[in-house]
Amino acid sequence: MTAPRGLPRAEFAARCAKAQVEMARAGLGALLLTTEVELRYYTGFLTRFWESPTRPWFVIVPSAGAPIAVIPSIGAHLMGQTWVEDIRTWSAPDYGDDGIGLLAETLREVVPDAGAIGLASHLESHVRIPRADLHRLEAALGARRLIDDAAITWRLRTIKSEPEIAKITAAVAVADRAFARVDEIAGAGVPLEQVFRRFQMLCLEEGADWVPYLAGAAGRGGYRDVISPATEAPLQPGDVLMLDTGVIRDGYFCDFDRNYSVGPPSAAVASAHARLIEAVDAGLAAARPGARFADLFHAMNAVVRPSGPPDASASEAGRLGHGLGLQLTEGPSIIPGDDTVLAPGMVLTLEPGVDMGGGKIMVHEEDIVIREGGAVCLSRRAGREIVVI
Amino acid sequence: MTAPRGLPRAEFAARCAKAQVEMARAGLGALLLTTEVELRYYTGFLTRFWESPTRPWFVIVPSAGAPIAVIPSIGAHLMGQTWVEDIRTWSAPDYGDDGIGLLAETLREVVPDAGAIGLASHLESHVRIPRADLHRLEAALGARRLIDDAAITWRLRTIKSEPEIAKITAAVAVADRAFARVDEIAGAGVPLEQVFRRFQMLCLEEGADWVPYLAGAAGRGGYRDVISPATEAPLQPGDVLMLDTGVIRDGYFCDFDRNYSVGPPSAAVASAHARLIEAVDAGLAAARPGARFADLFHAMNAVVRPSGPPDASASEAGRLGHGLGLQLTEGPSIIPGDDTVLAPGMVLTLEPGVDMGGGKIMVHEEDIVIREGGAVCLSRRAGREIVVI
Repeated sequence: MTAPRGLPRAEFAARCAKAQVEMARAGLGALLLTTEVELRYYTGFLTRFWESPTRPWFVIVPSAGAPIAVIPSIGAHLMGQTWVEDIRTWSAPDYGDDGIGLLAETLREVVPDAGAIGLASHLESHVRIPRADLHRLEAALGARRLIDDAAITWRLRTIKSEPEIAKITAAVAVADRAFARVDEIAGAGVPLEQVFRRFQMLCLEEGADWVPYLAGAAGRGGYRDVISPATEAPLQPGDVLMLDTGVIRDGYFCDFDRNYSVGPPSAAVASAHARLIEAVDAGLAAARPGARFADLFHAMNAVVRPSGPPDASASEAGRLGHGLGLQLTEGPSIIPGDDTVLAPGMVLTLEPGVDMGGGKIMVHEEDIVIREGGAVCLSRRAGREIVVI
Repeated sequence: MTAPRGLPRAEFAARCAKAQVEMARAGLGALLLTTEVELRYYTGFLTRFWESPTRPWFVIVPSAGAPIAVIPSIGAHLMGQTWVEDIRTWSAPDYGDDGIGLLAETLREVVPDAGAIGLASHLESHVRIPRADLHRLEAALGARRLIDDAAITWRLRTIKSEPEIAKITAAVAVADRAFARVDEIAGAGVPLEQVFRRFQMLCLEEGADWVPYLAGAAGRGGYRDVISPATEAPLQPGDVLMLDTGVIRDGYFCDFDRNYSVGPPSAAVASAHARLIEAVDAGLAAARPGARFADLFHAMNAVVRPSGPPDASASEAGRLGHGLGLQLTEGPSIIPGDDTVLAPGMVLTLEPGVDMGGGKIMVHEEDIVIREGGAVCLSRRAGREIVVI
C-alpha cells in the first residue's frame, strides 16, 4: 500500500531505447502513438480524462532521444510532470484544425523525407484519430508514409519490469482483500446490482484507486454470461455468484474472478469448481519459460474438457487467459493458435471455464507471473471447495 | 432510483428510422458502427467489457429494418437480450480472421454493389477496427466504398428523449447526494487520494452503478489542473478542493464538479466562486432554443473574463461546456467556433473557469437540459458562497 507512485525516469528511457532498436530494424523513423495505453507506456501520462472522447492526444517516439508530446493544452500541466520535455500544445477542440497541422509539422521535423512512421495496426489495437483527420495527416506528410508499427510496443509490453510486477501485485492484493469480504455484502435476497455496488465499495476501501471493471452473474447451477452488468434480481439459495473485477492501483490492473455458492452448492457445482481449480493447477504447472501459450491452453483444456474440442461457449469464449498489466486484457492469448513463448516477466491470467449444460457455464480466473523457475500465482489461490455465502 | 432499467424497443426503432432517413439523403446503403457508444445508441448493448481491447464488435444499420450485429460469441447472450435479432458471431480472438470475413460477407449481403457504407469520421470519433483489418475489410468489399457517415449518429444523439433525460437526471441526482456529503470524507489532513477513494464510495452508496470518471485537485487559492489523478498530499487549511465526477446510472452519465474551501476561503477564492456562479447564471439565461452554442460561450466568458479574449488556460482549456449523455462529454462544444443551434432536448454542461493568477484556476460546472421555455438546471445548483469543510 505504501510503494512509491509512478515509475523512475530510467524505466521510461529504457522502454524508449528498446523501441528505438526495433524501430531501426523495422526501418521506422518514428512511432506515432494515439491511444491511452501507448502514451502511458512511453511517458507515464496517467489520467482518467480519456473517458472524454473529445480531444486527440499524440506522442511521437523519434529514432533517438525522448518522446515528443503533441497534445491539447488542457494536458500540458500533467504531461509536464512526466519525463517528457518537448511538449507542444494547441487549444482543443479546434474545428478548423484539431492538432493535425501541429502534428504534421512535428513529424516533418523528426522524420526525414520519404521516411516511414509506425502506427499500431495489429489485433487489439486501434488508431485514436478521427478518420477524416487521419486522411488530412497523410496528405500533410508529403512523401512520408504511415505504415504498420511492426507491433513493437505491443511486444515490448508483454515483459513486465519488477516495478510493474509490484504494481500489478498490489492491485491483485486489493481485489484479494475485497473478495475475502464478499460474505459481508452478498447473500440470499440481496439484489445483484446491490452486490456489484457494494463490491466496488469494498475494492475502494481496500485501496483501489478506481474500479474500471466489474462484471459477473448469478444463476442456479451456473450462469449464462460473463460480461453483463448487474440486474435487479435478488440472489437466491442455490445460485452461483461470480464476480470478475479489474481494479486499478497506480495505473496497473488486476483481473480475476471468484465464485460463491448462495447456500450449499449442488454436487454439479461443487465438482465443477474443483475441476476449475485443477485446470488452474495444470496451467500453473505448464507455465514455464519456454512453453508456448498454446501449451497452456491444451493443459487446461484437457482438464475442463477432457473429451472433445475446445469449447467456444464456455469461459471467455474459448480463450483460457491472456496478458495483463496496463490494460485489463493484453496479449498474448491462451488459445490454440498462439505460439508466443512464455518468458520471465510475463504476467497473465489463467481463466478456464466449464460447460454446466443448458447454456450455463462456470469460469474461474487467477493472475500469475512467469519466473525463471516457473509460474508464481499473484492472487491468493481459491480452494477446491467453492466458498459458501 | 426505481425507474425501469433500459429503454423500450420503440426508442431504438425510432433512432434507427431517423438514421435511415438521413442515410437515404446522404446516399449511404448502411452505417458500420464499431465503438461502444455507437453500438449502444442503436441496440442498447450495455457492458463494461469494452474495458478489454481484445475483440472488435460490429453493428450494421441497413437502409431499412433493424440493425445486424456481427460480434464475438462471448457477447451473443447479452446482445440476444436487446431488440437485435440478426446476431452473427465468431469465436474471437481468431488470429486468422478476427471477424473481418464475416463482416464483409454481411455488408456484401446488405449493401448493393458500388454502394456506400458510412463510417464515423468526424471530430471526437474513431474507428475501433485494427488498422490492418480495416484495410482487409476495404479489399473484401469489392466496389462498395467506406465513406464518411455524414455525422448522422453524432447529430441524432444531441437531442435526448424524455427517458434519456430521466436517466441523466438520475445520474445527476446520485452525484448531487454524494457532493452534499463531502464534509463526511474530506478535511484538513486527509490525503487527496483518500478523498477520491471515499468520494467514489459515496457515489456508489448513493446509487451509482459505477464511477467511470473522477478527477479533481486541491491547492492553495486554486489548482493548476483539472484532469489529474489524486496525489498523496494531505489537504491543507486554505486549499480549494475541486471534485469533478461522471457517474453512470443505467448507462447514462452526469458530469459536474463542486469546489470546497478547506477552512475559511480567502477573499480571492470567495470572489472567484461567486463569479463562477454568476457565469452559470448568464449561461442559463442565454441557453434558450434558437441561441447558438457560441452565444453561451460569449455570455459566460463576459462574466469570467470581462476584459480580454477567451483564455485557453482557464477552465477546460477554453471550452465552457459540452453535450452530455451516453458519454461523459459529447458534442456540441461551448466554444466561439460552434454555431450549433440549441434545441429542446439537448443536455449539456455549463463549465466556466476563472484564472486565479500564478498558473492557478478555478472551474465550476452544472448540468442542464434545454426546454421550450429555456434551460432547466438538472444539478442542484451550487450557491454563490463556496462550501467550507
